[in-house]
Formats: sequence, C-alpha cells, structure tokens
Amino acid sequence: MIVAMQESATEEQIDAVIDAMEEAGVHVHRTTGEMQTILAAVGPTAGLDLAKFEVLPGVLKVHRISSPYKLAGRAWRPQGTVVEFPNRAAIGGQKVAVIAGPCAVEDRAQIFAIAEAVKAAGGAFLRGGAFKPRSSPYSFQGLGIPGLALMREAADANGLAIVSEVMEIAQIEVMLPYIDCFQVGARNMQNFNLLRELGQVRKPVLLKRGIAATVEELLLSSEYILSGGNYEVILCERGIRTYETATRNTMDISAIPVLKKLSHLPVVADPSHGTGRRDMVAPMAKAAVAAGADALLIEIHPNADKAVSDAAQTMYLEDFAKLTTELRVIAQAVGRTL
Amino acid sequence: MIVAMQESATEEQIDAVIDAMEEAGVHVHRTTGEMQTILAAVGPTAGLDLAKFEVLPGVLKVHRISSPYKLAGRAWRPQGTVVEFPNRAAIGGQKVAVIAGPCAVEDRAQIFAIAEAVKAAGGAFLRGGAFKPRSSPYSFQGLGIPGLALMREAADANGLAIVSEVMEIAQIEVMLPYIDCFQVGARNMQNFNLLRELGQVRKPVLLKRGIAATVEELLLSSEYILSGGNYEVILCERGIRTYETATRNTMDISAIPVLKKLSHLPVVADPSHGTGRRDMVAPMAKAAVAAGADALLIEIHPNADKAVSDAAQTMYLEDFAKLTTELRVIAQAVGRTL
Amino acid sequence: MIVAMQESATEEQIDAVIDAMEEAGVHVHRTTGEMQTILAAVGPTAGLDLAKFEVLPGVLKVHRISSPYKLAGRAWRPQGTVVEFPNRAAIGGQKVAVIAGPCAVEDRAQIFAIAEAVKAAGGAFLRGGAFKPRSSPYSFQGLGIPGLALMREAADANGLAIVSEVMEIAQIEVMLPYIDCFQVGARNMQNFNLLRELGQVRKPVLLKRGIAATVEELLLSSEYILSGGNYEVILCERGIRTYETATRNTMDISAIPVLKKLSHLPVVADPSHGTGRRDMVAPMAKAAVAAGADALLIEIHPNADKAVSDAAQTMYLEDFAKLTTELRVIAQAVGRTL
Amino acid sequence: MIVAMQESATEEQIDAVIDAMEEAGVHVHRTTGEMQTILAAVGPTAGLDLAKFEVLPGVLKVHRISSPYKLAGRAWRPQGTVVEFPNRAAIGGQKVAVIAGPCAVEDRAQIFAIAEAVKAAGGAFLRGGAFKPRSSPYSFQGLGIPGLALMREAADANGLAIVSEVMEIAQIEVMLPYIDCFQVGARNMQNFNLLRELGQVRKPVLLKRGIAATVEELLLSSEYILSGGNYEVILCERGIRTYETATRNTMDISAIPVLKKLSHLPVVADPSHGTGRRDMVAPMAKAAVAAGADALLIEIHPNADKAVSDAAQTMYLEDFAKLTTELRVIAQAVGRTL
Repeated sequence: MIVAMQESATEEQIDAVIDAMEEAGVHVHRTTGEMQTILAAVGPTAGLDLAKFEVLPGVLKVHRISSPYKLAGRAWRPQGTVVEFPNRAAIGGQKVAVIAGPCAVEDRAQIFAIAEAVKAAGGAFLRGGAFKPRSSPYSFQGLGIPGLALMREAADANGLAIVSEVMEIAQIEVMLPYIDCFQVGARNMQNFNLLRELGQVRKPVLLKRGIAATVEELLLSSEYILSGGNYEVILCERGIRTYETATRNTMDISAIPVLKKLSHLPVVADPSHGTGRRDMVAPMAKAAVAAGADALLIEIHPNADKAVSDAAQTMYLEDFAKLTTELRVIAQAVGRTL
Repeated sequence: MIVAMQESATEEQIDAVIDAMEEAGVHVHRTTGEMQTILAAVGPTAGLDLAKFEVLPGVLKVHRISSPYKLAGRAWRPQGTVVEFPNRAAIGGQKVAVIAGPCAVEDRAQIFAIAEAVKAAGGAFLRGGAFKPRSSPYSFQGLGIPGLALMREAADANGLAIVSEVMEIAQIEVMLPYIDCFQVGARNMQNFNLLRELGQVRKPVLLKRGIAATVEELLLSSEYILSGGNYEVILCERGIRTYETATRNTMDISAIPVLKKLSHLPVVADPSHGTGRRDMVAPMAKAAVAAGADALLIEIHPNADKAVSDAAQTMYLEDFAKLTTELRVIAQAVGRTL
Repeated sequence: MIVAMQESATEEQIDAVIDAMEEAGVHVHRTTGEMQTILAAVGPTAGLDLAKFEVLPGVLKVHRISSPYKLAGRAWRPQGTVVEFPNRAAIGGQKVAVIAGPCAVEDRAQIFAIAEAVKAAGGAFLRGGAFKPRSSPYSFQGLGIPGLALMREAADANGLAIVSEVMEIAQIEVMLPYIDCFQVGARNMQNFNLLRELGQVRKPVLLKRGIAATVEELLLSSEYILSGGNYEVILCERGIRTYETATRNTMDISAIPVLKKLSHLPVVADPSHGTGRRDMVAPMAKAAVAAGADALLIEIHPNADKAVSDAAQTMYLEDFAKLTTELRVIAQAVGRTL
Repeated sequence: MIVAMQESATEEQIDAVIDAMEEAGVHVHRTTGEMQTILAAVGPTAGLDLAKFEVLPGVLKVHRISSPYKLAGRAWRPQGTVVEFPNRAAIGGQKVAVIAGPCAVEDRAQIFAIAEAVKAAGGAFLRGGAFKPRSSPYSFQGLGIPGLALMREAADANGLAIVSEVMEIAQIEVMLPYIDCFQVGARNMQNFNLLRELGQVRKPVLLKRGIAATVEELLLSSEYILSGGNYEVILCERGIRTYETATRNTMDISAIPVLKKLSHLPVVADPSHGTGRRDMVAPMAKAAVAAGADALLIEIHPNADKAVSDAAQTMYLEDFAKLTTELRVIAQAVGRTL
C-alpha cells in the first residue's frame, strides 16, 4: 500500500497517517519529495482497508501495490488449471467444453431429450436447475431433488457430467450425491458464507460474475473458495449491466482474455444470459471461443418457446446442433478442438 | 402489453405472434396501420414474459403498458404509508427519522455510548449488525445473538427502536424477539425466498436498493414482501455502481423523488454506504432531506477510525451531533421536522 | 406513439393529453380499458418529443411504437449495404476488410513502412490521423495537410484506400482530395452540424459509436448523414464506458450482431480503442470477426512503444502480420474471407 | 508515477521498464521487496502516458501518485474562486446564484417575459441558446446573432448577466459583444481545441460535465482553459449516464461536494438536464443547494409545454418563482443566501 499525501499536507497530518499505518501493523517508508510526501507500507498489507486511510486529513490517494488475490493469480499456477470430471471430460484444457441444458428440469422426457442432444452435439456437460425461486409464488419453483435424480439418470445414460446451481448452504449436502459441479449464480457471487462452505467441498465450482461485479471482484470471490482448499474453480462471464438496452446485459467478451491473463482458472462464457436473446447466442458463442473461452454454457430446450423459464434466451435443439458444428471450426481456428 | 411488429413483418409472422399471445392467455386486438401492425394484449398481462415475444420473428419491440407492480404503486395508497414503531416513532410521516448506529455491534460500552448519542441527537432508531460475514474468515464475524441482546438493552434504555440486517431465512425467527425492523441488504434485494418469508412476518422491513438495481426492480422486490401481507416496507437508496470512481458508489438522490412519486412507501437515504467516505456523509444527508427523504441511515461510532468495519464511512459522534442540528434546519426548510 | 395513462388518471387529465397530442399534429385513438386508458397516436409521429408527453399529469409512460430511424433500418435495404472504394476494395461484402495504420502520421518513413505492412498482410485500407488535438498544447498536434499528402503517396504506392478522421466542418473541404473515407470520432458522434455536412459529401463516412451512446443513438446519428443523400455510411463499435476498469473501455461485441440485425449498414470493430491494451487487440479482433464484423480497424506502428500517441494500444507490425494470418482462419470459419 | 511489477517479473523485464521510464525523461528509484519490485518515477511525471507502461511485460499495475491537474486543484487557491460579473453578481461567493432562461431564445416577448421573471425571483443571470443544432434539419435552429441581441436587451433591461452556449471556435468572436459568460456543453467537454481558445478569452466559462465524464476528466478539461490564462472557470454537474432509466440522466449530486473538495472552482448544478423532467427539477435543485452548489442553472419558459426545445424539462414561470422562494430557505439552512 502506498499513501500519496496532498502537496499541502502538514507535518502533523503526515505523522497522523504514519501512526495509523503503524497501528494497522505495517512499517512505513517515507519519501519526502519536492512536491509531495509518499508513505509506503511494508509488511502484511493484504488485510489493510485502504478506504480507511483515504479519508484521513491530508491524504491525496491510497494505492494498492500488490495484487489483492493470491491463489487465483496466474503466477500461482502459470501453466493454467484444468478441472477434470468423472466422465473424463475436462474444462481448461485444449478442448473447448460445451455445457448445455434447460434453465429448469421440467420432466423426464424433457431432460432425456436434452441430454441426448448434448451428447449428439459432442458436449460432455448437462446443465439444469432443480431449485427455482421465481418472481411469482404461483410460478413453477423447480422439481427439487426428484429433478436432480432425473438429471443424474439422463446424464449417466449419455455419459455427461452435471452442472447445477446451488442457492444456499443447506442445498450443498443435498446436491452432492447428484451433481458433478456446483454453479454459483451471479446474485450469489458475493454470498461469502456460501463461497466459504463451497471451499470445504471437494467438487468443482462454476462461479458466475455478478451483474455489477468487476473482474477483480470476481477473482476475489474465487479466492474464498480456493482458500478453503477447493482448487477446482471455474470462472464464468455472463454479461454485465450497462446503460445499453438493446441486449438485456452487455456481454463483456474482453473479460475472457483479461481473466486468462490475470488468473490460471478456466473461463466459461454464458451467451444465453449474456444477451438474453436466442438470436444473439450463436454470434456471441463464436466470439467467446474466438476470444479464448475454455467452455460455453448454453440454454437449450426441445420446445424453447414453451420453456417454463428463460424462454427468450433458450435455443431449440436443432439450432444448438448447428451451432456446435460451427463452433468446432472456430475452435480449430484458435488452435483448439470442441 | 403491446407488440409492435416490424414494417416488413409478414402475415405469417403476425399470425404466429397472435397465436403465442393467445396461448399465453390473453386476447389480442390487432391494429393494421399503413406502415405497421400493432398487437395489443387484453386480459391478465401481469405474468407475461415480454422477452419471450420480443424474440419472435417479425417483432420490432414489446412494450409493457401497465405498471409491473401494484401494491407498491402510489395509486394503491395515494396518501402515503406511515410505518409506526413501538417506541411511538414513525417513518414516512411529517417528521424525518434518524436511524444511526455502528456497522457492527462490538461490545456493551460501544453500543450504549452510541445509543445515548442517537437519543441525544433526537434520533429514534438504533441500527447495528449482529451477523457480519466478512471478507476474511479471520476477521470479526459479528457478535450474533448476544449482540442483538446488547443492542436491545441499549435501545430500551434510550427509548429507541432497532433496525438490524437479516441475511438468511434462518435468522428471521432468531432476530424477531430483539429487533423492531428487519433490514435487507443490497446484495439480498433479489433474494426472493428471503423476501417472501419476510412477507409473512408482521414487523417492518427496510429494503435496500441493489448496487445495480433500477428503481423499478426495487419496487418489484418490495412487491414480494407486500404480497405476503406485510405492508410495512421502507425503501432505501444507498448508492449505485457507475463508471465514476471519485466516490465508492454514486448516490442516486433523484431516486428519492422518483420513488416518492411512483410509490406510497417511505424512502430512506443511506449516505454512509452511498458515498463510502465520512467527509461526504454530511452534504449528502442534507441533499437527501432536501430532496424529500423520510429518514436517514447513518453509520456512527465513538472511535470511528477504529471501527471493526466500514471505518472510512463511519462518522464520529460529535460530527453526527453537529450534523443532526444542521439537518433540523434543512427539514424545516422543506416543511418538515427532524 | 402510445401514451399509457395511470390507473388513477382523471377524465380531465386524459382530455389534456389528447389535446396536447392533437396539437402536435397527430390523430388520437382512445382505448378505455377496465384498468387503464391507452391513447395511440396516428399520423406523422416521427418528430414527436416523447418526453414532453411523459411529464403531463396522469401519464404513466409513453412508448415509441415505430422505429425512430428509417434510412438506417434493415428494412430499407434488406440485402445489406456494400461500400465500394476506388481501389476496388469494399466494406460490407463477403470479404472482411482490414483497416490499419498509426494513430497519427509522423513522417514519410513511418507511413510508408506501415502502408507496406498493411498491403503485405492483405489489408486494403490505410488509416492515420493528420489533425491531432492533444491533451497538452506542447504535445504533437499532427502534421496537417502535409501528413495527408504523405499518407496519399504511401497508400497509392501500395494500392490502399485511406480512412482519416475529420474533426470539424472546415476540414471536410481540405481533406477531400486526399482521402477515401471520412472517419467521425466517438466524441463527434452527436456533432449534428458535422454529420449534416458529411451528408452532402459523396465519399464514405465511418461513424464511431460514442463512449456513452446506445446502439439506437448511433443509428440515429447515421440517419443524419443518410438523410443528406450520402448512403455510404459504415458504423463502428469501439468500446463503451462501464464500471469495469480492467480495460479502458468495455468493447461491446454484442453490438455487432445487434447492428447487423437492425441495420443494413456495414459494421466495423476497433479493438485498439475498444480495449486500450495492445495485448487484448488480438483476442478481441478475433471475437469481432467471429461475431460478424465486416471490417477491423487496428492501430499499428513499426515502433509501437514510441508512437507519439496511443502507444499502449498500438501493435507492432510483426504482431499485426501474425494476427491477420489468424484472422483469415476465423473469417473462413464464419463463411467469409479476409 | 509508481510501477508495481508482478511477483513473477524477471530481472530482464524490470530492466526494460526502467529503460522505458528513463527514456521518458524521469529518474527511477527501485525498491526490491521480498515479494515484489516497485519502480518510482522522480522528475517531470506530469506528461507521462501511464497506459504505455502498463502494457510492458512483467508490469502488474501503474499508479499516478501526483494529481493530474494543478491549476484546478484546491491547493492552488485554497480560499476558493469567486467569479464576478459586470452586473455585480458573482458565482462562488456566499450567495447562491440563480441562472435561468429558455433552452432557446424564441422571440422578443418570450425573452423579455423570462428576464423579468428571473429578476423578480432574485436571479442575476439569464441563460438562453442562440445556436441550436437540432436533430432534424427541419427543426428550429436558433435565432443566431439576432437572438443574442434580443437577449442582451432583455438582460440589460433587468440588470442581468448572460450565459450562452458556444458550440464552435468561430462563434467565440461573434458572441463576445453580447454575452457575459460562455457555456461549454456536455458534448464539447473534451473539445480541446475549443477549450484552448476559451483559455485565451477574458470572459468566464461555464464548463459542463460530459455525460460519461468522470470528475477527474472534468477537472482536466478545466485545466485547458485555466492554462491559457483564463482563470474564471465555473464547473457544472448536469447528470451522467447510468443503467437507470427512470430519469433521463442520473444527476450526480455527490459530485458537488467532491468537486468543492478537490478544486477551488465554483460549482453549478443543472437539475433541468440532470433529470430531464420538470417535476424533478424542484427536489433536485434543493438537494444541490443543500449539498453545497454555488449556483443553479434552470430552464424556464412562460409556456413550457410549447417550448421549441427541451419542453419536458422546462419549468413554468410561476413554478420557478415558487421554487426560488423555497430555495432561499434551503440556502439559509446551509449558511448562505440566495
């Protein structure tokens, strides 16, 4: 941490800042320039609350000099993390993974039809929600555990691994026997209690970026899981909120290469939520793979217009099959397979 | 709901949209203009998913014509809602309420000193957190129930009502005996399960706007609580995320008159979180009252720089006392008391 | 235009709105529903100022039903516009165009080296600035007309067309003999006087999206040029301002398919300004082509670190050559050439 | 400037960064920590392009340690700047100034009626536009110089000073004889050529914040005018673009105290453009004064609904008179007059 004092700062103000820094447990190196005094913190700066020093009288600005995350940083594992699954599929390796499925598991026929479509398209991961807190108490709330069981059956019959959203700590235990990867939704990206519990689990976690979260905040959230000893974290870009209204969210494709540069964790792109429109999923899926995404998360449904949730952004199975064929060529163009 | 078709839409596309609308349970009025066909939905449109129609071929745009919230709307109670508390204080009436306290209850001396300062300043509400999921597992996590008990004691000794944050459903039952008003934090604004449970409670709920939530989304979230039969909801503006970095958030003061116009619910302003900087709390508190806020939520601490959390935005007790004196004059200038 | 009245609107308020609409020159169709009255405007609605009606007492919301732009809309020329240049290159056709060059023309050696690199890479367009209003009055201000002349020479020697930024009306006349395409910078996207003058010119215009402009506003701006009779407009996505700070701007890749859907005009992507970082240009250029961009605008310089402006986002010539080879494969993967 | 290297940075990378810094004209102080190497620039750092160093291999982050603006900084004139006008009114002093008038001067009757209303309300400044580049070439384009002459007459008859927008360099000379203060609109905030010319003028300049500009960028823009020797600059907050759509812009009231803290320049608030809605002008005007604004800029018109431009945000004269009465009380509540 470096504290830059205002040019007009008095000796008294400088001393008060030095005292506050030392009280926070760090040593202070002072550089008195012609114009400005600079105070550098040496020692255990990771836990320092920068804002606390920024409001002290005479302070111009406080800068964090070291990276606020460690385990998620690229330097910690320069070669990159590859998360492996029981069905021998992997996310983060040379092959771009396809994770597809409905927003919500609805019934046996639906989930089996979808699982077969995923397999046929060369995908190795089935996604689907079993717990669906919905806007209206009268809406479909998800099938719960029976939904997970159905999904497991459909996945096993087609050699797929399962990704499913966990919404509260109590669901972790319940979901463990059925799923291969927990998904943490955008609204829970900073639910630190949930993240900490998932750090104790020994199954992969797919962590979605919050709708107003920075790339740095996403990495800080992943650090909660990693610091519990669960090193199998997958990051997911799914659109951020901006002033633009032509798409529901603005999918931040540049977050993909930025995350790949800053972190060793695999990066997934979710063009379904990223755009909110079925007709934008294909171009954005291609863009994500071209930009270096390790996997795609896509909502599909045999009868997309009638899906009980997220209908507008859900693809028909035929369109999905066509898309994966096109994506295969893009993957090759960037030196990968799919 | 009104569906505006593209000028180039074919009869076939128009028919498909009409079918989809009817299947969704509404009648369709068709207007065939010189340039454009317009389809208006008549009937139960509240539950319609607009996005679903927007992606149908030939559709230009879909508009919601009726308000998406009912119980929260001004029309439902034109005279405005006044939420009353056991200590005879109220939020939403002629008097601007002051809700103040620490981010976290730390110990007996701290919370009593603060409660006395609130009373001395003419405030009637004590705020404070008992459950504090923090960024580091080694940080202070809140005192839990003993903290609530301490806060209750301090509040009762000074005739104050208590506002405290509830973070998960399991805490509702636990907190009920101690508190007078549940606070729902910005990160939980769209935790619909929690909101629905709070709709079953018969104590007021202070609902904070999410960091990336629109005014309309805040009102929709309040509707969850209201529709459960809990009509004592208080809305809170606490800063939104924008591109500006001079303050931690951008406090949307204009949301105050906008909410007062659209809804009958009282509106609270939180300049502490809204700015993240102690030196900005006073001007923004004044601005909020001038713009019509019904109450202020302010973080205070006898030793603000040493507060275990939110130190940078926490005011010293003396500065708080001075601020309330100044606010009293502003309140009078807009025809109210404080 | 459709005016949705509040449920509580009085007959008097409804009549006042009808009067205001008729005074604005449209006929009014009134639908009196059980809950709500709806007023639809019939007639010449294009010039109506919606905001004016939105503030009238009793109004809930005003909706624009027809598209606010006509000439830029896809329906006007469903097959898409292809802009052709004297060097037989085109933008908008089957071939993805590459427009590359320095931020500013610096000297003969520089611009010739760059023009040769563009040609060698299969590019057909040379970009470069001659007028450079810079942050400091002591900084390099551009070579002016001699810079344009040098660029023309370098372009002609390599069979390239020239794209160069026009910053004020007075420069149009001056630039005409030297350039093949005017570029309008993001800051001038709503400089309506400049746009109107460019509508009178018979050379293509590359119009950059403003840093805080919506897709709709970009299309409205293009309409100014089109309505003057200059139909050769090329739209350019170059990054928007969001809360994210990991990249200078957030490149809105989804704007590319959205613009292609809404408009017949060709769409160019500028990953140099879009990211502000040399190391992000390649992945974002690939993403843009995968998403359907008709051309790329890339800043290159033989000695990028020493470029007089935009050094951080400028690529070295070797990296550019490598990138175009990779882009060729991506272009093929989406059924195009480069 | 401080360059923080990545923990994994090699000696070679560090040397390359040191070379680049020295080549840019500064001395480098190197601190080799246990974890990380820090390079501090000593010397003339004002002109350094930070982004240029941020993309060098091995660099983690680059920080600007000194303020990027000097003349606009509070330290340069701690007591604050008061801009005085020929009619003996001032902006920046103890009295809160009221600047009011139409969006556009329309005719003699209109501007005289307005000038009288401004005077009657205790205002000392008349605003009004003479040059109006409008969205449609068929719309009213402003009266031009005759409009300025009319405004001068009306202002003189009522002892008012005139604020009017200058849109291009060529207008400066033309406007000089008629006006007392140039206004630079939000779209021109970074029109550096225009700003530089206004630095040569010896009349005050009211500089509006761009719709997507940070507080720091606004101050940097003011520096252009100040560095030309024109020290009479007035800053203006007029709303920024965010994801919220309930108001046209989000008026950033917190920018007022932030600007007052960072700079000595007076700060004006424009609630008319800040909200875009007539019914929001009064609460936001009050909020701005409560937060410390030195002046208000308000659009008024005797027949607001029929104003040729900005009708929705324009107040009626009676409402304006009422508002100034209320504002007077708010001003007193914060120790000022109006």
